[in-house]
Amino acid sequence: MSSSSPSPFAHLPEPPYYVVAFSSCRTDRDDGYGNMADAMVELASRQPGFLGIESARGDDGFGITNSYWRNEDSIRAWKAVVSHAAAQELGRERWYAHYRVRIARVDRAYGFDCPG
Amino acid sequence: MSSSSPSPFAHLPEPPYYVVAFSSCRTDRDDGYGNMADAMVELASRQPGFLGIESARGDDGFGITNSYWRNEDSIRAWKAVVSHAAAQELGRERWYAHYRVRIARVDRAYGFDCPG
Repeated sequence: MSSSSPSPFAHLPEPPYYVVAFSSCRTDRDDGYGNMADAMVELASRQPGFLGIESARGDDGFGITNSYWRNEDSIRAWKAVVSHAAAQELGRERWYAHYRVRIARVDRAYGFDCPG
Repeated sequence: MSSSSPSPFAHLPEPPYYVVAFSSCRTDRDDGYGNMADAMVELASRQPGFLGIESARGDDGFGITNSYWRNEDSIRAWKAVVSHAAAQELGRERWYAHYRVRIARVDRAYGFDCPG
């Protein structure tokens, strides 16, 4: 991945693999959110079984982050890491008014790239 | 769902159900995109097996739409409807430079709501 202009798309292997779909509404508090979000992505990318991550947030504060994982064990381990980090200092409740997490097994994938 | 200020969160039943994770990069062409996107959501919501949809797009043009479905049959039927609509007039290639679709079975879900 180029550091100058990384693609927002995750480069994933063939299915099966797993997705953690994290939907959230931001609070009005900034308060280090950007640093936390960057740190979480950095932390995730060093976890065993991490495959990739995609993230988008609109001006209304609603965002979706889909992170991709090799198997359920790697997701469980990641959740433990997040919980530990949150308990220590991050505190999701500081930044998120609401969130929903759905864990799913990807069985099929396809795509399209603009020719040229 | 209130029409004045609908929640961006989908209200989903207990798992299992299915998610179609649609990641895309917009082209520079506007060209009716907003109307198409609204029409697709409206069309999806009338499909058998449709459970809900969540969508976010950032200023960089990268967006994620996660739509939720009862089962794989309803996803297949929806894909046929989209393909038909696209062939007729919508033409995803007009608006999307790249997209990726991943179809996954949700087995677990949890969340958090800010108290008060």
